[in-house]
Amino acid sequence: MNFSRTATLAEVGEFPLIAAITEGLSLQAEVRVGPGDDAAVLAVDDAVAASVDVLVEGVHFRRDWSEARDVGRKAVAVNVADIEAVGARATGLLVGFSAPADLPLGWVLDFAEGIRHESHAAGVSLLGGDVTRARDITIAVTALGSLEGRDPVLRSGARPGNLVAIHGRLGWAAAGLVVLGRGFRSPRVLVEAQRVPQMDYGAGAAAARAGATSMIDISDGLLADLGHVAQASGVLINLRREAFDVAEPLQAVAAATGADPYTFLFAGGDDHALAATFPSPDAVPAGWLIVGGVSLADDDHAGVLVDGAVWESAAGYDHFGSQRASEPRR
Amino acid sequence: MNFSRTATLAEVGEFPLIAAITEGLSLQAEVRVGPGDDAAVLAVDDAVAASVDVLVEGVHFRRDWSEARDVGRKAVAVNVADIEAVGARATGLLVGFSAPADLPLGWVLDFAEGIRHESHAAGVSLLGGDVTRARDITIAVTALGSLEGRDPVLRSGARPGNLVAIHGRLGWAAAGLVVLGRGFRSPRVLVEAQRVPQMDYGAGAAAARAGATSMIDISDGLLADLGHVAQASGVLINLRREAFDVAEPLQAVAAATGADPYTFLFAGGDDHALAATFPSPDAVPAGWLIVGGVSLADDDHAGVLVDGAVWESAAGYDHFGSQRASEPRR
Repeated sequence: MNFSRTATLAEVGEFPLIAAITEGLSLQAEVRVGPGDDAAVLAVDDAVAASVDVLVEGVHFRRDWSEARDVGRKAVAVNVADIEAVGARATGLLVGFSAPADLPLGWVLDFAEGIRHESHAAGVSLLGGDVTRARDITIAVTALGSLEGRDPVLRSGARPGNLVAIHGRLGWAAAGLVVLGRGFRSPRVLVEAQRVPQMDYGAGAAAARAGATSMIDISDGLLADLGHVAQASGVLINLRREAFDVAEPLQAVAAATGADPYTFLFAGGDDHALAATFPSPDAVPAGWLIVGGVSLADDDHAGVLVDGAVWESAAGYDHFGSQRASEPRR
Repeated sequence: MNFSRTATLAEVGEFPLIAAITEGLSLQAEVRVGPGDDAAVLAVDDAVAASVDVLVEGVHFRRDWSEARDVGRKAVAVNVADIEAVGARATGLLVGFSAPADLPLGWVLDFAEGIRHESHAAGVSLLGGDVTRARDITIAVTALGSLEGRDPVLRSGARPGNLVAIHGRLGWAAAGLVVLGRGFRSPRVLVEAQRVPQMDYGAGAAAARAGATSMIDISDGLLADLGHVAQASGVLINLRREAFDVAEPLQAVAAATGADPYTFLFAGGDDHALAATFPSPDAVPAGWLIVGGVSLADDDHAGVLVDGAVWESAAGYDHFGSQRASEPRR
C-alpha cells in the first residue's frame, strides 16, 4: 500500500483497495479457498447455515456517531448473531461493500480492521467480497455457519410447558441511541452498546447442545422477536416483568428522559441478545435468565403477553414503515 | 397481498413485502430450512462454494433502461456465474435488497419474479434475504454452490502447454450498452444481452468434469480477466485474434459507431462467458471455442498477448477508478 489514508477510493482504485482490505488476513483451517478467486470454498460437514444482513449509512449507522472500526465490528456481529440463533457456529463471511468514490481510504482501512477484529473474536474467516461504487455506504454481510451435525434450532420449536430464557443485554443499544439522539455521549456504556453489540460468541451453539427447542436473535426488540417465535410455534409466550433486571444505566436514561425503562428492555433492538425456549430448568445453560414460559395458544391467538396482558407500547421495528422515534435520520 | 402495485414500500411495510417476495417459492430438496428463520440451512457435501456480487442502481443498471424483472434475472445470473467459474453447481442464493421507501411495490414484485425465473433456470433456491431502506436500490446477492466432491477449478491452475477456450458470448453486453447510451433500442439482441446475460447453466461444472485446469467468469472483459488467470498461474496466455468470431450484430454496431469490434470482444464485460484452460484439445467440451494457448512466462512477465503483442486498448474496468466510456452514469 503506497496510498495515504486521505486518498479517495477513486484515487486508490478497486484492486489496490481489495488488496488493502484482505492484506494479512488470517483464515481458519476449514477455508479451502479464500478471497481472490471467483468464489471461495469452505469445508463444511453435511449442512451449512446462511444468513444475510444489510447495513446502510444513514439508516443503520451514521459516520458522525460511529467510528469506521465500530461499523465493521457491528457488521460482523449482527450477522454472526443470526447464525448463532439457529444453533450453528459461524465459520465464514462474505462482504459486499458499496461506497462513494470520494470516501477516504482511511475509513475503509479502519472498517476492515473492525471486520478483522470482530471476525477473530467470533472465530470466523473473511471468505470474499465485492466492492463497488454507490452514493451511500452500504454493507451487505453474508455469514455461513456449521451445524456440527446438529439439527438447526428454529423459531417454530417452542412447545407448551417450555421455559423462555434470554442471554445477553436488552435495551442497552436503544438507550444508547436515545442518548446519542439528544447530543450526549454518556452513559458511555450505552453509547458503546449502540455502536457495537456486546456478543458472547458460541452461546447459540451451547444452547443448541443444551436442548433449546426454539431460538431467535433479538434484533427488532424482545416482544417483536418473541412474537415471531410464538407465531411460528403456534404458542402463547408469557413473560414475567419482575424476572427482568433493569440495569443501572437504563434506569438513569429512563429517569433523565421520562421514559419507561421497560420500553428499552421489551422494544429495543440492536443488542443481539438471544431468546430461546428450553424443556426444563435443568436444560437452561449458565448465563441465561429465565423470564417466562410457554403455554397453549387458545383460539389461535399465538402471541406474547407480559404478566398476562398485552404490552402497550411500540413493539417492534418496520424497516420501511413508521420509524422508531429514536432512529437516526439523515 | 392486499396491496396495489403502485403502493410504496413504506405503505406496504417490511413483513408484507417479504411475504410477497417469498410467496410461492419453490425450494430444491437440498434446502433444509428456507426463508423465514434467522438463518437458512442448506445440505451440502463436504464443501461449499460462496461468492457475493453487488448491483447498484445508476452504476450497474438504470431503471429507465432495464425492467425490474431483468434486474432480478441479472442479479441471479452474475452471481451464479461466479459459482460456475470454480466448477461448482449453484444451489442457493441470499439476497440483500435495499430500496427507497417510495419505490412502488410493483417494481419489487417484478424484480422478485425475475429472481424466481432465473433461479429456476439455474436450478438454485432462494434461501433468504434482508430488506432495508436506502436512497438507491442496491442488490447484494450471495450465491452458494456444491462442488459435488470435485476440487475447485481456480485461476491459478493454468499450465504451459494448456489450451485456452471460451464458452459464451463476448462483447454483446458492451455493444448493447453503447447502443443504449446513444438512445437506441436496437439491435435488440444486443440490448437484451446488456439487460440479462445469456447463460448456459452447468457449463462450469461440465468443464470441471472435463478436466479444466483453470477457469474464470468474464465479467470485466476477456483480457482483464485472463490477465487475472495469467497472474495467478504465473504464465503467459497467447490469444489468436483470428480464432474469434465477430458476431454480425457486433460488426453492425462497430461499423455504425466507428469502433473496433475487437474492443467489444476483448474488453467488454457483463456477458459472463467462461474462459478456461484445458490440458489438451480432447479435453475441451463441446460448445467451447479454442482461442489460444498457455506458455511459460519469461522474466516474470505473466500476462496476456494477442497474436504475440500487447493489445493496445482499454483492457478492463475499475469499479472506483476511471469509468468505461459507455458505462451508465446517473
